[in-house]
Amino acid sequence: MRAEEIFLLLLCLNLVCFAVIAVGPPTCPADLGSECSDSDSGEWEGEFFPGIPKIKYEGPSSKNPLAFKWYNANEEILGKKMKDWMRFSVAFWHTFRGTGGDPFGAPTKNWPWEDGTNSLAMAKRRMRANFEFIDKLGVDKWCFHDRDIAPDGETLEESNSNLDEVVALAKELQGTKIHPLWGTAQLFLHPRYMHGAATSSEVAVYAYAAAQVKKAMEVTHYLGGENYVFWGGREGYQTLLNTDMERELDHLARFLEAAVAYKKKIGFNGTLLIEPKPQEPTKHQYDWDAATAASFLRKYGLTGEFKLNVECNHATLAGHSCHHELETARINGLLGNIDANTGDPQIGWDTDQFLTDIGEATMVMLSVVRNGGLAPGGFNFDAKLRRESTDVEDLFISHIGGMDTMARGLRNVAKLMEDGSLAELVHKRYKSFDTELGALIEAGKADFETLEKAAMEWGEPKVASAKQELAEMIFQSAL
Amino acid sequence: MRAEEIFLLLLCLNLVCFAVIAVGPPTCPADLGSECSDSDSGEWEGEFFPGIPKIKYEGPSSKNPLAFKWYNANEEILGKKMKDWMRFSVAFWHTFRGTGGDPFGAPTKNWPWEDGTNSLAMAKRRMRANFEFIDKLGVDKWCFHDRDIAPDGETLEESNSNLDEVVALAKELQGTKIHPLWGTAQLFLHPRYMHGAATSSEVAVYAYAAAQVKKAMEVTHYLGGENYVFWGGREGYQTLLNTDMERELDHLARFLEAAVAYKKKIGFNGTLLIEPKPQEPTKHQYDWDAATAASFLRKYGLTGEFKLNVECNHATLAGHSCHHELETARINGLLGNIDANTGDPQIGWDTDQFLTDIGEATMVMLSVVRNGGLAPGGFNFDAKLRRESTDVEDLFISHIGGMDTMARGLRNVAKLMEDGSLAELVHKRYKSFDTELGALIEAGKADFETLEKAAMEWGEPKVASAKQELAEMIFQSAL
Amino acid sequence: MRAEEIFLLLLCLNLVCFAVIAVGPPTCPADLGSECSDSDSGEWEGEFFPGIPKIKYEGPSSKNPLAFKWYNANEEILGKKMKDWMRFSVAFWHTFRGTGGDPFGAPTKNWPWEDGTNSLAMAKRRMRANFEFIDKLGVDKWCFHDRDIAPDGETLEESNSNLDEVVALAKELQGTKIHPLWGTAQLFLHPRYMHGAATSSEVAVYAYAAAQVKKAMEVTHYLGGENYVFWGGREGYQTLLNTDMERELDHLARFLEAAVAYKKKIGFNGTLLIEPKPQEPTKHQYDWDAATAASFLRKYGLTGEFKLNVECNHATLAGHSCHHELETARINGLLGNIDANTGDPQIGWDTDQFLTDIGEATMVMLSVVRNGGLAPGGFNFDAKLRRESTDVEDLFISHIGGMDTMARGLRNVAKLMEDGSLAELVHKRYKSFDTELGALIEAGKADFETLEKAAMEWGEPKVASAKQELAEMIFQSAL
Amino acid sequence: MRAEEIFLLLLCLNLVCFAVIAVGPPTCPADLGSECSDSDSGEWEGEFFPGIPKIKYEGPSSKNPLAFKWYNANEEILGKKMKDWMRFSVAFWHTFRGTGGDPFGAPTKNWPWEDGTNSLAMAKRRMRANFEFIDKLGVDKWCFHDRDIAPDGETLEESNSNLDEVVALAKELQGTKIHPLWGTAQLFLHPRYMHGAATSSEVAVYAYAAAQVKKAMEVTHYLGGENYVFWGGREGYQTLLNTDMERELDHLARFLEAAVAYKKKIGFNGTLLIEPKPQEPTKHQYDWDAATAASFLRKYGLTGEFKLNVECNHATLAGHSCHHELETARINGLLGNIDANTGDPQIGWDTDQFLTDIGEATMVMLSVVRNGGLAPGGFNFDAKLRRESTDVEDLFISHIGGMDTMARGLRNVAKLMEDGSLAELVHKRYKSFDTELGALIEAGKADFETLEKAAMEWGEPKVASAKQELAEMIFQSAL
Repeated sequence: MRAEEIFLLLLCLNLVCFAVIAVGPPTCPADLGSECSDSDSGEWEGEFFPGIPKIKYEGPSSKNPLAFKWYNANEEILGKKMKDWMRFSVAFWHTFRGTGGDPFGAPTKNWPWEDGTNSLAMAKRRMRANFEFIDKLGVDKWCFHDRDIAPDGETLEESNSNLDEVVALAKELQGTKIHPLWGTAQLFLHPRYMHGAATSSEVAVYAYAAAQVKKAMEVTHYLGGENYVFWGGREGYQTLLNTDMERELDHLARFLEAAVAYKKKIGFNGTLLIEPKPQEPTKHQYDWDAATAASFLRKYGLTGEFKLNVECNHATLAGHSCHHELETARINGLLGNIDANTGDPQIGWDTDQFLTDIGEATMVMLSVVRNGGLAPGGFNFDAKLRRESTDVEDLFISHIGGMDTMARGLRNVAKLMEDGSLAELVHKRYKSFDTELGALIEAGKADFETLEKAAMEWGEPKVASAKQELAEMIFQSAL
Repeated sequence: MRAEEIFLLLLCLNLVCFAVIAVGPPTCPADLGSECSDSDSGEWEGEFFPGIPKIKYEGPSSKNPLAFKWYNANEEILGKKMKDWMRFSVAFWHTFRGTGGDPFGAPTKNWPWEDGTNSLAMAKRRMRANFEFIDKLGVDKWCFHDRDIAPDGETLEESNSNLDEVVALAKELQGTKIHPLWGTAQLFLHPRYMHGAATSSEVAVYAYAAAQVKKAMEVTHYLGGENYVFWGGREGYQTLLNTDMERELDHLARFLEAAVAYKKKIGFNGTLLIEPKPQEPTKHQYDWDAATAASFLRKYGLTGEFKLNVECNHATLAGHSCHHELETARINGLLGNIDANTGDPQIGWDTDQFLTDIGEATMVMLSVVRNGGLAPGGFNFDAKLRRESTDVEDLFISHIGGMDTMARGLRNVAKLMEDGSLAELVHKRYKSFDTELGALIEAGKADFETLEKAAMEWGEPKVASAKQELAEMIFQSAL
Repeated sequence: MRAEEIFLLLLCLNLVCFAVIAVGPPTCPADLGSECSDSDSGEWEGEFFPGIPKIKYEGPSSKNPLAFKWYNANEEILGKKMKDWMRFSVAFWHTFRGTGGDPFGAPTKNWPWEDGTNSLAMAKRRMRANFEFIDKLGVDKWCFHDRDIAPDGETLEESNSNLDEVVALAKELQGTKIHPLWGTAQLFLHPRYMHGAATSSEVAVYAYAAAQVKKAMEVTHYLGGENYVFWGGREGYQTLLNTDMERELDHLARFLEAAVAYKKKIGFNGTLLIEPKPQEPTKHQYDWDAATAASFLRKYGLTGEFKLNVECNHATLAGHSCHHELETARINGLLGNIDANTGDPQIGWDTDQFLTDIGEATMVMLSVVRNGGLAPGGFNFDAKLRRESTDVEDLFISHIGGMDTMARGLRNVAKLMEDGSLAELVHKRYKSFDTELGALIEAGKADFETLEKAAMEWGEPKVASAKQELAEMIFQSAL
Repeated sequence: MRAEEIFLLLLCLNLVCFAVIAVGPPTCPADLGSECSDSDSGEWEGEFFPGIPKIKYEGPSSKNPLAFKWYNANEEILGKKMKDWMRFSVAFWHTFRGTGGDPFGAPTKNWPWEDGTNSLAMAKRRMRANFEFIDKLGVDKWCFHDRDIAPDGETLEESNSNLDEVVALAKELQGTKIHPLWGTAQLFLHPRYMHGAATSSEVAVYAYAAAQVKKAMEVTHYLGGENYVFWGGREGYQTLLNTDMERELDHLARFLEAAVAYKKKIGFNGTLLIEPKPQEPTKHQYDWDAATAASFLRKYGLTGEFKLNVECNHATLAGHSCHHELETARINGLLGNIDANTGDPQIGWDTDQFLTDIGEATMVMLSVVRNGGLAPGGFNFDAKLRRESTDVEDLFISHIGGMDTMARGLRNVAKLMEDGSLAELVHKRYKSFDTELGALIEAGKADFETLEKAAMEWGEPKVASAKQELAEMIFQSAL
């Protein structure tokens, strides 16, 4: 089968065509010839990324696109190795299931190891590619949805069985050093979830989703996953005209309570994480932003059981800086994990780009350092190649760029902290509260009469400059 | 005094003009001649709105801009008089202190009763105008900030004394039928509040703000106000680089706790209301939206003491429909009051326009009816004339338009409820939860094993159409 | 093949899976049994929409979802039949190729006439469904992309041949009364167009696109199409870092010049239309909005050869009201056609919803009436069912809702024009230009010295109220 | 005079405070005592910025906030001195008339040299401060509005006379080295301009505006200004319901034609610049963005007479990156000047912040270098201190930060150009057009038949990766 035919087969997306027939039996991609072996078993002779070496640190002066210029895994910064601050993870779905399709375009990726099927054998071959990628990139964590690593069966039982088979291989390939940063269930792709999963108007869908999460938690636990994520892909509404929002939110709470109970039952100690997003695919996602998720968790008494997985692109879609969302999570005791990506400041949908903005990365790392790190969470690269990036090496270049950018952010935070002047500027702003009346206020003991008395005695307050431009100058100097 | 001089005199901020000195002796505006009397005492002979009659209901076929076409105060709709559903209130600041200034433009309003001063006498004259306006418009509620009804003094004591003097007059003019829907303290205009009030980095400002709220609560109570509002005008940040957000939020909580305590101490039974807004004037306002405010109230244990004042323009600035914010407040038990206005869907700042969109008004009234009304809250017209609308009659036209639009919304809700098909459509969507398993789930008793068993027994769920287009058709048919 | 299997086959989208194999031979959908015949020939016994009658006008009091309440095709309004003002068209791609897929979800539609293939036979059967739909809806126009009506072949020649075969059937089914409002080429879905078509960085793609447009213009001409549309689906950039924008725009101009030449050569007299859109799929689409398209056409001397197809959802994505874009097109002599749809005011991507907002529709019709209608353009329903709307009747309900809304807009414009007060308000605002100096200015003969002299003589100008609230009141009263 | 009184005196608009009356006789600010002399003559003994030295270049390792770390005026980069690439200019209105007021807040700045009046004497004193500031900052250009440097009089004649008096002083203070980058007329602040200036509905306002521009061009010419700017502050509409957009745009064109004629008449050779902005203060500004302005200029045949002044904050408000607007201007031959500032990516209004983002600055400088520089245009700091920044030194810190950021951008561009790999990446993308067919296409000689023939011969095009992530990596490496 030639490349052109593969393309023809993939011309399937929402706008236009919606059915595809394979031409002839599944075979190896023609241009790989005898190098590729029996696709039924998922075997694949030789490397998946034959031209790509293990990525090494070569320092800032290197011009080699396949080397780190800033990320030096074992270098110690602010008392910890870089890799321990970062805890980078590869997102299986973007890196190995991303097709380059978009609402107006068919898939563009044509990876040599793909045979055009969604078979179990293909799933296994893809998993091998994943671990070669992880190894060459030099990280030790990965994230997955149940349905992106193994194909849907005709029944739930069959889907579970497919999953078990692929998970067994993943377990073997993980070895002792690699494990999932987190797992999750894909509750948004299949048409059954079109009205939501835990918030679907159909009770049978609620039950189905529960069964799927149950299984996904089990396999995450089995693989040694450190966290389990809930992204409420379709937990939201398209219009309030046909929606009972209150009932749906109650259902969501019941669902999460059952998840907590099951987690305890199976002895899974990973953190449960909610991933806020304001919109897309629904008009309103119930976990709009960190504050909304916190309100929900508090309302239903779930605060102690969940933390948040903050995604930078979701933050900006909600009208916040990523740093704001991280700080909001942090001061609410909810910062659990970061989906390291970025959007385009002029675009109103989720672009899931690799973050390459140094200033933004420095802000993000400020929150991480204040939080004492993210463990057992980490940075998951919930980021995808642009549709137009179609070389295999682009998969590496994008991850290297993302890792270097975060590493540079960490180095900048170290510089800021050594310099100390930004922290001092902030500290000085609030020093008037480090007084007797300040202490009384902060202890909740300053009533309005006491405060009025002080106000009248003191007369017109003196108010100092906020020194924003100075703060920005200090910050930029560290970049 | 010539027109040019009057213009010079009005050079103050658009929100509330609060300090201007007249050149030469205060006199009557030249074009009013002998009709106007001694400005020192706030007296004013004759009417403020001489050409404007009491606004009457004339029905939908009327072409009279100074008549109601849809609002018929005593007509009963859905079991209540329209006026009792609506509880309309005039916002003193927009209607009597709005100057037409904007960030690029000087004031444009040149009301005949203004003498160009911010004197006590002028404050009193303005208060008389307010009550004539209220009377002619046919409403019985008003809202105010402390500093927009009485001038700042050189000290807090003098400001309080000025306030007392104007409040005494207001009390007299109110008579028995009129009272404030709510009062509030203006904690954002004066430079002392540039870093916030309760969240200022300066303890002296915190104390000053407390003193001001204390007094504002007292006068609201004295005037028979039914609610007291906190709009955190500058409770937020411009950049996180110079801000200790956690400490500021703690201060805000302490402040509100002290307000609750003082409210109880003075026997004020009105509802305390927080008014969410996402941005402007700060980059991030701490009370971003209804969910954020709810999260804050829950975190600090203040939920029982506060409700929300939802403003439609603030809702859309936060990326929500107004209906969404109202429903969020409602299902959290927090819907207390509505600031009835609208923004421009293509504009990213607070335009505070009078709402004239019938569909939007119908959505708003749907929430109000579901809430069983808003009392002791109501609809405050936190809306201002466009800068370019400079005729005295425009003040009336804008309010009539706003009242008629809300009234039309209520009439449409009645039509929708009589018809019943929209409610039925929603009810039917969730009927699968009115089953044994649904009941188990809603009771929090359906664990993952039970649900998995059901899912496997049932096989692939059937999922019905959400009928959004039908819902929209039914909705639009009622307009 | 059961319904569930069909679903499994369609689980193909950008996020996860990207290859699908048909299970067994293509057959009739199981639940239709013997009613459906030989899929190879595209034949289909009986109706496609068996429960749906011809849609009739029943007037505003009707509760029948399958009837018009406002659109009465032959009723005369403002001197023209409603159908002649409207010139409604069905968009083949949304109505017959829309699958309900989105970036996070697989297709949801499961129309009974689809057999899960993209065969020629299926293409023909679908075309028959299209004409039954058009007939029952009571319109006489349709729009299409080349590739949504006929399948891609393995070569361009084969694709052209497929197209010819389907077009021949369409010609036959059209009869004498029906024809395309416009045709267009799909230059964005196939991976070859990932960098653009006329603005691709690859010269072979430019040539391919030209060949495709050549053919699409030919078949549009053959079918009696009245217009031909260029939506530059991927004419734009994702980042300027890798883009030579100037060279790309020059290529686009050359391409359009060649299209003009070819149109003339084949004797096609239809209008060429450019459809502006600001973003999506690219970060920046070169035809951003009406003004940008106008600037481009003027720069390259193409103004006389093109008009614009204004889409309401694209307008709001560009930060404009739809009315603004229509007026901009109109006063530049470029208003050629309208893609009748709407977005969600809080959503930053193209939702392509059916417009049901009466106020918006009235604004749109104001522009149309001022333009003296749209012919040879019309209203194309570039609008799709929500993903969650999965009943066949939803296809009708959505179009009826859209047609009724536009019809109601036209009726409202008639009311506004009869009343006359809004037009008079506008006319009066500018009456100071209906003077000697005004005439001099408008004739381009008032130089700065003359104007300065007038300014000094006249002194401070009198400036009247803009009466925006009154204008809004008058407008809303007509709804 | 106490602080409170000074505050009262500063109650004017944030943009330009233009009328305030002192209480009691004008005196020196109390805290300056005998150091300050007769305010009537604008004299001021000693320095305005006594603690501030001439700002020097100290290199990147300096921690001195009052030193340049990257801007080294006479250092040569890419063949030109930094100062000749930059041509920095101080914006008089922000730096000397910015009050810190915003729509919700009173002025906060309390500069020691201000006496609370808007007298001619104060205007002169302020002008002296301006030139001391320019001297200490080490730049040689400034920009001004007519009304921010001299007070409005009671008549146009008096305003002109005031302007002449201040301009004479400015001319003297300029000496031989300093002159305006550009001048402009303030046609938006005064209420007479509330409906626009050249697009006002009142002919008398049109004439008044013409007289004002006439004078402003004269004084700009007299001072040796190199450009003259038109920012259409209120040339736009608030609602189309009351607006005749076509007539208004025609008036604007007539106005600009008259300006061109007058410019030639007086022998002013400076460039005329239009400054696009999408919104604010109006809902729609007629000069929305670069493309809209270009379309307007082309429609009315004004292209040869005008260039554009691109402002970064205006670019992002229009939904574009600043780089996009600069490139659009550049490739249309319209890049004349840059208003160097930035907005907040999450804020929907004009914040006019100093740009401190290095990546953004590098993008901006890429366009400038491609343009061969900006002369006779330059970089005007249309940027203001945050309202909360109230120290005199903040004026310097902000400008230093802004200058250093742009300088760093230039240094990065030099690095990118030396490295060459980014340019090569772009060049390679388009190399398929450097062929025979490419040349034919670019010459406008490739018709559809020729192209179709090529497409059929070539078969399916090969399409290369766009290498976006690699481009981003190369770009970020240069920062």
